[in-house]
Amino acid sequence: MAEALKGLELARAAASKMGVVLSCAVVDARGDLVALARMDNARFFTADVARGKAQVSAMFGQPSGNLAQFGTSPAFANLNLTAQGRLYPVQGAVPLMRGTQLFGGVGCSGGSGQQDEDAAKAAAAGF
Amino acid sequence: MAEALKGLELARAAASKMGVVLSCAVVDARGDLVALARMDNARFFTADVARGKAQVSAMFGQPSGNLAQFGTSPAFANLNLTAQGRLYPVQGAVPLMRGTQLFGGVGCSGGSGQQDEDAAKAAAAGF
Amino acid sequence: MAEALKGLELARAAASKMGVVLSCAVVDARGDLVALARMDNARFFTADVARGKAQVSAMFGQPSGNLAQFGTSPAFANLNLTAQGRLYPVQGAVPLMRGTQLFGGVGCSGGSGQQDEDAAKAAAAGF
Amino acid sequence: MAEALKGLELARAAASKMGVVLSCAVVDARGDLVALARMDNARFFTADVARGKAQVSAMFGQPSGNLAQFGTSPAFANLNLTAQGRLYPVQGAVPLMRGTQLFGGVGCSGGSGQQDEDAAKAAAAGF
Repeated sequence: MAEALKGLELARAAASKMGVVLSCAVVDARGDLVALARMDNARFFTADVARGKAQVSAMFGQPSGNLAQFGTSPAFANLNLTAQGRLYPVQGAVPLMRGTQLFGGVGCSGGSGQQDEDAAKAAAAGF
Repeated sequence: MAEALKGLELARAAASKMGVVLSCAVVDARGDLVALARMDNARFFTADVARGKAQVSAMFGQPSGNLAQFGTSPAFANLNLTAQGRLYPVQGAVPLMRGTQLFGGVGCSGGSGQQDEDAAKAAAAGF
Repeated sequence: MAEALKGLELARAAASKMGVVLSCAVVDARGDLVALARMDNARFFTADVARGKAQVSAMFGQPSGNLAQFGTSPAFANLNLTAQGRLYPVQGAVPLMRGTQLFGGVGCSGGSGQQDEDAAKAAAAGF
Repeated sequence: MAEALKGLELARAAASKMGVVLSCAVVDARGDLVALARMDNARFFTADVARGKAQVSAMFGQPSGNLAQFGTSPAFANLNLTAQGRLYPVQGAVPLMRGTQLFGGVGCSGGSGQQDEDAAKAAAAGF
């Protein structure tokens, strides 16, 4: 948890530098929420979207943006049904890896997909 | 957000003093997530339960434990259907008030209902 | 997985000794399925019930039969909504513990609650 | 059940030869789960996906990969709604036939679609 909160701090620093307000979320390898923070004035739904992107990255061990195509398939729709529609196969999250070992994901929402991903990468670098 | 993260820190300090590991969440007046942290070894579902208690407190301006009775009513079941089952009318959260003005809720999960509420109160005191 | 399959074998031996046909399931600490086997002539729905009992034991670190009371609460109904109705707070499963460390659950369905639990305990003893 | 467990063993042998970790599932003619095993390090959701592919093969008497096109139709979406989103019309499962008599399906998940199907075929050969 301490690492996750530290990661969120780094994401916020990156967001501030880009001049955007974001929600960012850290999840574990199973996709369950570890920590989340929504910056002042970020829209209400960005918190859930940040989490959903992080979850997708943790499930597939890839940046959530890579799953945009797969995200339109019936198979993904099913996974999302099981997850109560929480998954967001959209750019803005990266997996957390220790060597080849996947241990979670971090995702942001509120800026452009690229800005979200840049902030997520800044967070991931802190682990 | 800064206040929310500070509140979560106070909740964790209270949890550590009680010897329990908790998830705690802060939501705004609309019940949307502002910040959340799950302490190491707290069970995975405590994050969503903490959020759901905080949401109930923010919706009704009362400790979530006060809603236990109402939580069994068909009316509450309907609210919860709209909220995809996220609301937890269970002890462990308190509303955030500035004078008579409700501005959010904070909730914890992982200990007994009383321990959860004590940690939530510690967080609320920091706002 | 090898341990889980071995545990299921022990559960079947116990079931045969009791003269019942059961489905038994092993889940990990998060409640996700690791292994499952349905004995010949066990009813089709026993597979999902066995899994749902095991999941409850893994979530709460207790025999699923202990959760019968809590299983009637709105809070449990919510957890079950999130889990697509898969949770069965009914006798017949036990948690898997290594000292005080919870690492999963094993549950059976098809006999009486007591027979199901006895077979689950036989499985648990093999880990 | 004994045959199903034997089939899963053959699927694992095939998976090991291919250097992948898979979940594999056997279902009966009705699509209900008979046996399932998730290999160590296979991702948590592969268990449900393996089952869902096997279910599709058992329902239509065809490799699940043949249903990819039909899987995008409203009719299939309805079937899946009835099945709570459990069906996966995706390569990786084959039907179990005795002559022209359909008696179940076996599916795998965790590798590429082709690897999943190869392991499923190895399992089917054991019946």
